[in-house]
Amino acid sequence: MSAIKELREYFGEIMTLHYTQAALGWDQEVNMQNYRTLEGRSKQVSLLEKLIHKRVTSEKVGKLIREAQKLTNLTEIESAMLREITREYELETKLPEKLVIEIAETSILAAKEWREAYTKSEFSTFQELLEKTVELQKEKATKLATHPDIYSTLIDLYEPGATYGWIANIFNPIKPKIIDFVKKLNSSSDKPDDSILHKNYDINKQFELSFELIKKLHYDLGIGRQDRSTHPFTSSLASMDIRITTRTREDFLNECIFGTIHECGHALYEMGIKKELHNTILCNGTSMGIHESQSRMWENIVGRSKEYWSYWYPTFQKYFPENLKEYPMEEFHRAVNCVQPSFIRVNADEVTYGLHVILRFEIEKDLIEGKIQVNELPEIWNSRMEEYLGIIPANDKEGVLQDIHWSMGAIGYFPTYFLGSLYASQIYSDAIKKMPHLPEDYKKGEFSNLLNYLRENVHQYGKIYRANDLIKRITGEDLNPDYFFKYIEEKFYPIYKL
Amino acid sequence: MSAIKELREYFGEIMTLHYTQAALGWDQEVNMQNYRTLEGRSKQVSLLEKLIHKRVTSEKVGKLIREAQKLTNLTEIESAMLREITREYELETKLPEKLVIEIAETSILAAKEWREAYTKSEFSTFQELLEKTVELQKEKATKLATHPDIYSTLIDLYEPGATYGWIANIFNPIKPKIIDFVKKLNSSSDKPDDSILHKNYDINKQFELSFELIKKLHYDLGIGRQDRSTHPFTSSLASMDIRITTRTREDFLNECIFGTIHECGHALYEMGIKKELHNTILCNGTSMGIHESQSRMWENIVGRSKEYWSYWYPTFQKYFPENLKEYPMEEFHRAVNCVQPSFIRVNADEVTYGLHVILRFEIEKDLIEGKIQVNELPEIWNSRMEEYLGIIPANDKEGVLQDIHWSMGAIGYFPTYFLGSLYASQIYSDAIKKMPHLPEDYKKGEFSNLLNYLRENVHQYGKIYRANDLIKRITGEDLNPDYFFKYIEEKFYPIYKL
Repeated sequence: MSAIKELREYFGEIMTLHYTQAALGWDQEVNMQNYRTLEGRSKQVSLLEKLIHKRVTSEKVGKLIREAQKLTNLTEIESAMLREITREYELETKLPEKLVIEIAETSILAAKEWREAYTKSEFSTFQELLEKTVELQKEKATKLATHPDIYSTLIDLYEPGATYGWIANIFNPIKPKIIDFVKKLNSSSDKPDDSILHKNYDINKQFELSFELIKKLHYDLGIGRQDRSTHPFTSSLASMDIRITTRTREDFLNECIFGTIHECGHALYEMGIKKELHNTILCNGTSMGIHESQSRMWENIVGRSKEYWSYWYPTFQKYFPENLKEYPMEEFHRAVNCVQPSFIRVNADEVTYGLHVILRFEIEKDLIEGKIQVNELPEIWNSRMEEYLGIIPANDKEGVLQDIHWSMGAIGYFPTYFLGSLYASQIYSDAIKKMPHLPEDYKKGEFSNLLNYLRENVHQYGKIYRANDLIKRITGEDLNPDYFFKYIEEKFYPIYKL
Repeated sequence: MSAIKELREYFGEIMTLHYTQAALGWDQEVNMQNYRTLEGRSKQVSLLEKLIHKRVTSEKVGKLIREAQKLTNLTEIESAMLREITREYELETKLPEKLVIEIAETSILAAKEWREAYTKSEFSTFQELLEKTVELQKEKATKLATHPDIYSTLIDLYEPGATYGWIANIFNPIKPKIIDFVKKLNSSSDKPDDSILHKNYDINKQFELSFELIKKLHYDLGIGRQDRSTHPFTSSLASMDIRITTRTREDFLNECIFGTIHECGHALYEMGIKKELHNTILCNGTSMGIHESQSRMWENIVGRSKEYWSYWYPTFQKYFPENLKEYPMEEFHRAVNCVQPSFIRVNADEVTYGLHVILRFEIEKDLIEGKIQVNELPEIWNSRMEEYLGIIPANDKEGVLQDIHWSMGAIGYFPTYFLGSLYASQIYSDAIKKMPHLPEDYKKGEFSNLLNYLRENVHQYGKIYRANDLIKRITGEDLNPDYFFKYIEEKFYPIYKL
C-alpha cells in the first residue's frame, strides 16, 4: 500500500475515535446536565484523548508523512489529506501527553462548574477552573508556537491560516461602522417592535414546529436527530450521524426558531460532504468561520428574509393563533429583524452580533496575554458592553457567564463567529448573482436551489480547500467585509423605513 | 507498584473502554432506532472491541498475572480481582482478533436487521444474519472450549460456573411441575380477571408515574436516567452512571409499570456496589442470574405483592381515575397476578415465565449444536409454545422474533433469567426470615429495609463472590428451586381462591 493510502486508513481509525468522543460529548450535553458526577465520563473522554494523541504522534505517522511527501502523483484529495495530516502531526507532537490529558479532564470539570455558575449566575463558582483553563491554554499555545503571538496560535486552531493581526485588520474598522449603523437605525421614527416575539408560546409546539422547519431545509432525520440542550450545538457522531440541538423559551420565540435554523445550517454543511471523504481527516468543515457562514446564511440571510416568512407565516399562525392570527406578516418580519443592543450573543440581531464577537475577541486577546486577570472579567465585560452596546448586564448569567466556550478551553474560537457573517454575505452575493430567483424560491418553500449551490461550492469539499482558497474559488476575491455592509444596508434601511 | 496493583490500574483503563462501549450501545438503543445507517456506530464499537481485546490479551497482562499469582498477601478483593482478570485473559487470548471484530460488527448489523424484521414481523429478513451470528458463536465457543460441550461454554460466559447439565438438572423437573401448577390454578372457579390492565392508559402519564415508582425505590436520578426504548434494559455507562429504559403501551399497563420496576432492580444492584470496587473489573453484577434475581425480586415478589399495591393503588387511582377510581384494590392486585399462557416472555406472569425460558434454553442448545437450523426456528418455536403453553403465536413478532438477544449474539443468556427467579425466592426467604415486617414496610411505602439488606448481602460485593458462593453465604445452601415453589404456592393459591 502506498504511504498516502496507509495514512488515510490509519487516520480513518483516528476519526473513529474522534467520533466516539463526539458521541460521549453529545450525550453529556443532552443527557447529563443534571448529573452529580461526571467523573466516569471525564475518564472516558480523556482516555480517548490519550489514545488519539498517541496515534497521531506515533513514529509510524512521521515516517509515512516523509514517504508520502516524496510521492509525485498525489490527487488533489490526497494532497489535502497529507496537508491536514501533517498539520495534525506537527501540532500534536509538540504537546506532551500529560498536557493533552489534563486539558481534556479539566474541560469536563470546567463545563460542569460553568453550568453550575451559570445556573446560579455566580462567576466566583467558575473562576478557579477558568483560571486553570486559561493557564492550560497558555501553556498549549506556548508549546505549539505556530505564530509569534499566542493568541494567533490559538486562533489558527479554529481558523487555519488566520492570525490576530489579520482579524484585527478586518474587525477594527468595522466596529465604529456598526456602532454608527445601529445609531442610524435607531434614529428612525418608525422602528420595528419585537414585543410580538415575547408573547407566550407553548414550548412543545415550538419544538414540534422546529422539526417542520428543518425538514423543509432538507435536514435528513434518517441520519440525524434534533434534541434540546442548554446551549444549542451541532455534532457529527459519524460521517452519517449529524445531530443538532435547540432550546425553547416560552417568552421568546427566536431562541428555538432561529437557533434551530442556525444549527441546521451547520448540519447541512456536514451532511453535504462528499462520500469519498467520509471517515477521513477531510470529513469536516474547513474552518469554523466557513462553518459559521453556513449556519448564519440560513439563519439570517434566508431565515430572516421577507420571502421566507411569506412562506412560513401562515403555518406559524396555525400553530400560535392566539398571538399571530391577527398580526400582519410584514410586522412579524420586521420584528424578527429588530436591531437593538441586547445581552445574549446567540440571540443578538445580525447587526449588533458583530459587536458581541469583537468584545470577546478583544477580551480573549488580553486574557490569554495576561493583561487581564480572570477575576477582573465580570467588570471588564460589563464596562465593554456599556461602551459598545450602551447596556450593562444585570448579572453574570447575562454577562460573562453566558457562553460555554471558555469552559471547554475554546479560546480563539469566538472571532470565527463574526467571520462567518462576513463569509456568508460574500458567498451569498455570488449565489444571488447566479440565481436571482432565490427569494422567489423561498416564497414557495423551495430551498433546494440554494442548498445545491452550497453543496456544490462549499459542502462537498469538506476540508479540501482552506477558507481563504475556498472564498477565492467561489467569489474571485479574498474575504471582503464590504459585502456585509452592502447586505445590511440594503436589508435594514427598508425595514427601518429609512 | 505490586503486580496486583498494576493489574488493577491496567484493567481500570479497560473498564473505561467498556463503559465507553456501553455509552455507544445505550445511545444506539435509545436514540438511533430510526437510523438508515449504523455504519459509523458499527466502526466505533468494533474499534473499541479491538482495543479492549488487544489490551486484555497483551503479554504484559500474562506476565503480571504470573507475578501476582506468586503474591501471598492478597486481600479478599485482590484475590477476586486476580481471579476475574485471569478468567478474562484466558478467555480472550483464545479468541483471534479477527473473530472478535467480526462478532462486534455483525452484532450491530444483526440488531438493525432484527429490528426491521421485528417491525415487519418477518423472520426471513433476519434469517441470514442470525445464521451468521450462530456460526460466529459456534466458532467462538469452539475456540474457548472451557467445557466439553459448546453450549456450556457459552452459558459460562453469562453465569460463571454454570453448565448445561447443571441447569438442565434444575429445569427438567421444574417444567412439568409448572405445567401442572398452571393447570391447577386454571381449574379455579374464581380466577382473577386482568381486563382492567388492558383499558386505555395515557402513555405519558404512565411514563411520569414510572418515575415516582423508581424514586420511591431509591433509584438515584442524580447518577441515572430513565428513557424509553424498544426493549427495556439497564446499562452502566460508568460506575456512577447507571441508566434504565422502559416502554409504554396504551392498552397494557404492565409493560411500563413492571418493566420499570424490573430494570430499577437491576440498577439498584449496580448502584449498590461499594466504592472501593468502582472502575475495577469487579464493578459489575456477579452473574446474570444473580442480576436477574434482583430485578425479579423487586418486580414480582415486592412489586406484585398485595402490600405494595396497598401503598401505590391510591396514587394509581389519581393518575387514572377513569379506569381505576371505582375498581377495588384487591381485584387490581389479583389482575397483576393473573397466571395465563401468553406469547411475550417479558410480559409473562411469574409462574409461566419459567416455561418461556426453558423453551429458549432447549432451542438454543439444539441450535448451537446444529440439531436445529435457523430457518426451522419459527416452526419449532411455535410447536414448543403449543406444547408448553398451549398457545401458538399468530406471527413471528409475538413468536421467535420477540427478543433482541440472539441478534446481539447472546446465546446462553436466556437460562439465567429463570435462574434469577429461583435465586430471588431463595434470597427473599432469608430476608423475610430476618425481617418479618417487610410486607408491613411496603404498605407504608418503605423499601429501604429490604434495599439495605440486599446492599449488605448482595450489591456491595459486585463480582467478589461467584453466584454459588454468594447464595451459600446468604442462605447456607446451594441453589434450591423448592423456595420458588413454596413462594408461588403460598402466593397464588389465595389469589386463585384455592
